[in-house]
Amino acid sequence: MANAFVNAPGEITGRLTDYIVAARWSDLPAAVRREALRSFVNIMGCTIGGARHDVVDLADRSLREFAGAPQATLIGRGTKADALHACLINCLASSIYSFDDTHAEAVVHPAGPVATAALALAERQPTNGTDFLLALALGIEVTCRLSKAISVPPAKGTVAWSQTGITAGIGAAVAAAKLLQLDVMRLQYAIGIALSQAAGFRVMHATMVSSLMPAQGAQTGLRAAAMAEHGFTASPAALEGRYGFLEVFADTPDLPALSDGLGDRFEVLRNTYKPYPCGIVIHPIIDACLQLRREHAIDPGSIANVSIKASPGAMALCDRRNPQNELQAHVSLYHWVAATLLRGTARIQELQDPTVRDPAVMAFQDRVEAEGNPDIAADASEVTVTLKDGRRHTCRIEHCIGSASNPMTDEQLTRKFMQLAEPVVGRARAKELAERSWDTEALADTGDLARAAA
Amino acid sequence: MANAFVNAPGEITGRLTDYIVAARWSDLPAAVRREALRSFVNIMGCTIGGARHDVVDLADRSLREFAGAPQATLIGRGTKADALHACLINCLASSIYSFDDTHAEAVVHPAGPVATAALALAERQPTNGTDFLLALALGIEVTCRLSKAISVPPAKGTVAWSQTGITAGIGAAVAAAKLLQLDVMRLQYAIGIALSQAAGFRVMHATMVSSLMPAQGAQTGLRAAAMAEHGFTASPAALEGRYGFLEVFADTPDLPALSDGLGDRFEVLRNTYKPYPCGIVIHPIIDACLQLRREHAIDPGSIANVSIKASPGAMALCDRRNPQNELQAHVSLYHWVAATLLRGTARIQELQDPTVRDPAVMAFQDRVEAEGNPDIAADASEVTVTLKDGRRHTCRIEHCIGSASNPMTDEQLTRKFMQLAEPVVGRARAKELAERSWDTEALADTGDLARAAA
Repeated sequence: MANAFVNAPGEITGRLTDYIVAARWSDLPAAVRREALRSFVNIMGCTIGGARHDVVDLADRSLREFAGAPQATLIGRGTKADALHACLINCLASSIYSFDDTHAEAVVHPAGPVATAALALAERQPTNGTDFLLALALGIEVTCRLSKAISVPPAKGTVAWSQTGITAGIGAAVAAAKLLQLDVMRLQYAIGIALSQAAGFRVMHATMVSSLMPAQGAQTGLRAAAMAEHGFTASPAALEGRYGFLEVFADTPDLPALSDGLGDRFEVLRNTYKPYPCGIVIHPIIDACLQLRREHAIDPGSIANVSIKASPGAMALCDRRNPQNELQAHVSLYHWVAATLLRGTARIQELQDPTVRDPAVMAFQDRVEAEGNPDIAADASEVTVTLKDGRRHTCRIEHCIGSASNPMTDEQLTRKFMQLAEPVVGRARAKELAERSWDTEALADTGDLARAAA
Repeated sequence: MANAFVNAPGEITGRLTDYIVAARWSDLPAAVRREALRSFVNIMGCTIGGARHDVVDLADRSLREFAGAPQATLIGRGTKADALHACLINCLASSIYSFDDTHAEAVVHPAGPVATAALALAERQPTNGTDFLLALALGIEVTCRLSKAISVPPAKGTVAWSQTGITAGIGAAVAAAKLLQLDVMRLQYAIGIALSQAAGFRVMHATMVSSLMPAQGAQTGLRAAAMAEHGFTASPAALEGRYGFLEVFADTPDLPALSDGLGDRFEVLRNTYKPYPCGIVIHPIIDACLQLRREHAIDPGSIANVSIKASPGAMALCDRRNPQNELQAHVSLYHWVAATLLRGTARIQELQDPTVRDPAVMAFQDRVEAEGNPDIAADASEVTVTLKDGRRHTCRIEHCIGSASNPMTDEQLTRKFMQLAEPVVGRARAKELAERSWDTEALADTGDLARAAA
């Protein structure tokens, strides 16, 4: 018997899309609404903070000749372009310092692509703050669930693919489709179009493309929703069908992770915000270094060597020594040990080339040894500093700052926003934008916020 | 010892890019030059022919609000847009009837994405015909080699992934980079950027997205080259590095297929052109049906049943009955058996909805049975028609028309061009465009051809 054509969506696609279309802001628990807001405040600060980065300049300059009418703001850049160009550039900015957010279990940085796609659309059509945050929450939900579904060993998903690259576009499509009020069928097409363009792998870490992958996701998702709105169709079996997304990206996808408990279990509650501008697996090591330096008033010159027990994830991704530039420093744990022990801070300045190329920072890395330990969790570390006089200090971090078990407070998020935004838009404007971002729920037109951040 | 950062390209990337940058038109054997031209003539006809298709209209309409300045022609549509939009729409047109070309061993349709990306660029900067055809030949070469390298069992590549989707962008990037005269380093970045966006899987067959995947490849490639031209960088290990393209898409990539014999062995020589507008695995079955009808003057009403021995590939992809629309008919062998036995022709009309929904065509499919046979090659078939009076006629096709062993002649290609172009631009203009396309090698500015095809 010949195979039939697939004309109906699978059960999982149906459950996801029924839920998304029906979801209302008032249905979300208060904690979920709050975390969606925190996710937005965080990513808004990152987007403003990255707006004038050289790599963002380069992308804008190289693609500007193809860009269209000024529909949407290039945050922090004082210009506008068509919504597809704007969301690509804004998402690139949000990701360029590796300072965004992380859903650790899903191995994704979800808010940037979703928020920048939604924000570009919010400038095309007036969108109130709760509609905007609802779209953001739903986009984050789908991104994280999809990534969890394919992060199942022995799939290559957990390391080889860029999980953000291959799932962010679908989350962005969901958010855009929600703002466009697409019906279930068109939402399924939007998801299908976005799924067909899911791309990215991890060799790109430490290069400009590392941040281009989520940016591509933002644009892919917005475009997919726009095409579906006009009636462009895709396979309704794109997600779960034979030769579809789940099959190509996972040997045995975790289907319950994808579609169970919609409306009861919310992934945004596990979203976390980076306190330091680098790969999140380095964060517990940075916490330990800063704490050691603070508690023991260590003179860096007195350090003989540093010994690190790191999580397997930290070793898999960031066991790299002697970065030559900022992009490589994102994923070098040795750089961050040197920089934080020498300087006592882990800010954007510690990521940038003058620090990366500082001979003292470079030389110090020779005194650092790291080894992976399966007993060390992803948010944990143990760092031992041995001084030249023989004394030893050890710091063990159980849950680093910004992890799900030790989340950033609202005050910390505001300070982070200021750290990012102030150098780009000045202190007064940064403070105003932080306040307005925290007040998103009350906005009559979220596009006003984007325009104010121009 | 910590992993080093990868700052140098692998050997394979180096060999490929050294070859591409050094290649000259005059270095190509005459047969290669001729086949590059035939590939272009064929795809130019397809692009003109598909230009006014509903799906192309829809894509242009839905993305037009984001498009930029009129840099490049939308072939057959009488308008212009920015080069990225133009190549997306033109490539979609080239693919929309599944009437393009096929490299059977590589399982790709290579010329559409490469040619449309190059053509959009040729309107930005005057490009003579031989430079254009050289870029096309190199883009086809890389697309096919890359696809062969990952089409190794037990990789999912041969069926689950859309090989055109995941390789076409790199070929398009190569062609665009060659026209932009990028140096080796920037070419490597262009390839890396394009690799990071490689996407597509086969569930999308029989939907609009089936043709959007190559179109996306064209745009991805052109954009990657434009970004690299401005200095955007990617991992030089994107292709062969840890967690890179070859690793994620293949368990055991065939590296010699990718990089051996550059300049000696040319994949374009194995490119073939479709005589019928549908999945190529159906073609030997169509040949048999047309031949049976012609040789035995069979009255379709006298047929009791049809029995088909098909290649395993035909069964894997096209064992689908009762398509409901044109997009589904692309991949239904039962539809094509019915249509060709009833009508004696296999033109675009046989693909379109009035034929697909013709009650006689639909009902006839109930009389057709097909089974896969491992002894039947991809370009072969055996079709047996049993008449109601008990007589039987069998036709065995060894190498279908348009296969590598039985290629379309130049005259057949011209007739195909006319079949495609005449309904869109009229007979006189179609004839002129066919002649100018055959004369590409002599063009001082290939952009003139695109503009003439507006």
